[in-house]
Amino acid sequence: MNSEKTKIAVLGGTGNIGKGMILRLALQNLMEDGVKNEVVIGSRTPETAQEAAKEALEELENCGFDTSDIKITGESNTEAAKEADLIVLTIRFGHVPSLLESIREDLENKIIISPVVPMVKAGPIFEYRPPEEGSAAQAIQARVPESTKVVAAFHNVAARKLQDIVKCKAVHDSIICSDDEEAKKTVMKLTENMGCLKPLDGGPLSNANTVEALTPLLINIAKLNGLKDLGINFS
Amino acid sequence: MNSEKTKIAVLGGTGNIGKGMILRLALQNLMEDGVKNEVVIGSRTPETAQEAAKEALEELENCGFDTSDIKITGESNTEAAKEADLIVLTIRFGHVPSLLESIREDLENKIIISPVVPMVKAGPIFEYRPPEEGSAAQAIQARVPESTKVVAAFHNVAARKLQDIVKCKAVHDSIICSDDEEAKKTVMKLTENMGCLKPLDGGPLSNANTVEALTPLLINIAKLNGLKDLGINFS
Repeated sequence: MNSEKTKIAVLGGTGNIGKGMILRLALQNLMEDGVKNEVVIGSRTPETAQEAAKEALEELENCGFDTSDIKITGESNTEAAKEADLIVLTIRFGHVPSLLESIREDLENKIIISPVVPMVKAGPIFEYRPPEEGSAAQAIQARVPESTKVVAAFHNVAARKLQDIVKCKAVHDSIICSDDEEAKKTVMKLTENMGCLKPLDGGPLSNANTVEALTPLLINIAKLNGLKDLGINFS
Repeated sequence: MNSEKTKIAVLGGTGNIGKGMILRLALQNLMEDGVKNEVVIGSRTPETAQEAAKEALEELENCGFDTSDIKITGESNTEAAKEADLIVLTIRFGHVPSLLESIREDLENKIIISPVVPMVKAGPIFEYRPPEEGSAAQAIQARVPESTKVVAAFHNVAARKLQDIVKCKAVHDSIICSDDEEAKKTVMKLTENMGCLKPLDGGPLSNANTVEALTPLLINIAKLNGLKDLGINFS
């Protein structure tokens, strides 16, 4: 392990959003300003995670990238969280409480990134269903040690755009919220080098509610107006 | 009165958002595809409204437009509502219940457009404070006759951009929500010709909550990131 590299665990990293995130994180090792990192994919079984790690490396090679400076491995969610400096939760909101319970002791002083959006399909449209804490991000904050810094980010990016590392040059805004200014800056720096995202300071975690709610709105607007994989820009 | 023209009342039309709205509505009379209309500004006293009407016409003339086919008048809010086919509520959320109470009997079968955003300044940031109905738009729906069609629109446009009829060519998206498809289409057509807005179908009125919440988020993001008069675009 190279101690200069940030070890990033992507828990639930075998899902749609996780896949693109892993590729975009790994590619930062090839960028001059990228955040040098090692990615550990977390999944319910280490075998699934290891398979996803192998596939991600193959995808990067197939796209023509030199992967000799890239490290992507797979572990169980609990092992991945243990090793990581920074943890991305790409899991469904319903699984958040039990997962946090299982990794709680390994979260001291770490950063957790939440792109989690609690939503349900109600007839033809998606509805945001925030928990009583106000947002998924705040529900996470309520379930981790006090020293853990929760940062809400990456909610409003379409999985397909995130995964399309070669062709997707669209730069959408990504609103980043946190009550910890240092952690927010770290994640904004990470976002700057995701290749398809531009970070915007979204203020405190109490603003995460609106940012999360944008995701079902984007899906609804896309469907209602015959559009696809919408992102958002402020200007 | 030309019966082919839509009579539009802009209640609270002497405020910042109202001013720009009136200019953009009036200008539609000079556009081939514009919705031909007569604007009645509503205010607490007819004198204030008449003064605002005179100023709006002068502003259009000063910008070099021929105002001979444009009609902007001023009335009390109740008189303006009585005459109108379509009513725009550019008032603060706190004033909504008493105003609706005073014009209730003149609302049968009419369209009400709500750009109303209930928000408060909490320390350095703005916070969205929806009423128990879910949004200002839904609170309005609960206070009008059953035949009145409420359309949520024009929440996320900066007053300064709306007022700058000559220079502002920025085209931002405006999300339009309503439970009445015909009324929604009417307002989308109106929006198309506002000169700085592109309408997007935002689905039912229950989606207005997120659209309203975007306004304080836009103000917060602008302040936090050193930006100004932000609008929103989906792509």
